[in-house]
Parts: sequence; C-alpha cells; structure tokens
Amino acid sequence: MHHDENCIFCKIVQRQIPSRLVYEDDEMMAFHDINPWAPVHFLIIPKEHIPSMAQLNEQHSAMLGRMMVKVDELAQREGCLPYPEGGYRLMVNTGQHGGQEVHHLHLHVMGGPRPWSKG
Amino acid sequence: MHHDENCIFCKIVQRQIPSRLVYEDDEMMAFHDINPWAPVHFLIIPKEHIPSMAQLNEQHSAMLGRMMVKVDELAQREGCLPYPEGGYRLMVNTGQHGGQEVHHLHLHVMGGPRPWSKG
Repeated sequence: MHHDENCIFCKIVQRQIPSRLVYEDDEMMAFHDINPWAPVHFLIIPKEHIPSMAQLNEQHSAMLGRMMVKVDELAQREGCLPYPEGGYRLMVNTGQHGGQEVHHLHLHVMGGPRPWSKG
Repeated sequence: MHHDENCIFCKIVQRQIPSRLVYEDDEMMAFHDINPWAPVHFLIIPKEHIPSMAQLNEQHSAMLGRMMVKVDELAQREGCLPYPEGGYRLMVNTGQHGGQEVHHLHLHVMGGPRPWSKG
C-alpha cells in the first residue's frame, strides 16, 4: 500500500502519530478530528495515500462505496442521533476552493445538536 | 426501480419536473441546484428513491462508489478549476442535525472562486 512519508494522515495510519480511533479495517480508518466543528466530528480516510477526490478512478470505486455505507453506523456509534431527527453532515473538501487542508482524502462526519462552530 | 410519488427528486428523475441537467446514466442523475451557494453548485442523486445515507446498505455500495468517482469529472465539466488551486466541496446532509431538506439522497457539489454565500 502506498504511503507518503510527509503526510500526517499516513503517519496516523502507520501509528507514527497517535489518534483517537473510531474504526479501522484493512482499507480504511476513522478517527476524531483534533479541531471539532460539532459535538461529533470524526474523519474517515482510506489507508492508501490518495491526495484528494481529483485522483479517484474506477479502481477506487468499491472502496469509496464501502466508506460511504459505513458512515451511518460510525456516526451513530459516536453519538449522532438517528435519522430523521438527528443525523450528520458529510463533507469532503478538494483543493483550495473546496477548503482542503490535508492532502490525503478524508470524509468529515459532523453531527450532534446545533449550533456548530462551523459547517 | 423504486420511486416515491411525493418526492420532488423522483419527479425530476421521471421528467415530471424540469431540471438543468448535468449528467445522467442508468443509476444516477446530476442537475443544477435551484438555490446555488457557490458559482458552481449541482447535485448528484441516485435514480432510485433512497431517503438518506441512513438507509444505505451493502447493496448500494457499488453505486455510491461510482457516484463518488464521477464527481471530479462533472465538477470540472461544470467549471470548477482543477486541483489543487481550484476544486470543490462535496456535502451530503442527513437528517435534521445534518441540515437535510429533501429526503432523497443527494450529493451537493460546490465550487468556483470564494467567497460563497454558504458552505
């Protein structure tokens, strides 16, 4: 699996930097955001270093689908209330106009009662 | 394919309500948001009526992956500048805490130069 030695999320995947882990399997990892915008705020990332959505191709499709299907289970486990009263916002930022800060693909999952500081 | 006769997005899929179409294939449709938050703002939806991410299961995984892989191509076609200077924000709202307004799963894709009115 490809890692980028200068990437902070690759370092989290390789346990060179600690994180508050939410979930892990062979292809993905989920951990709490260190600057939460909402009562619940965690990230889901592929373990492979993919810089952003702009680098996705058909080879990544199955994995991306599994990440999307996993969101609801993890959101509820982390304390988001159930749909339709509760729920969460999923956000994926790509490039400068998208507001991307770390260039390793990540899905923000934010939930819990409003108001939130951002998002 | 399951449609909900009271759902506005199912009516768009069935051409009972017009939309400014961005893309269509057997399983998904993309069209412009009628209240754009950004210079580029379109939605990608499954043609099947799925209320939100809370109803997703493994059967939807492959389709969701294809939707995610399609985003970059459609964003650039609609005028988002390329990564890393340009880009876009993907947002999926689930339930009331997520800010979901239409209860048919949809991916917001927003891009173009900042500032945006929201998002």
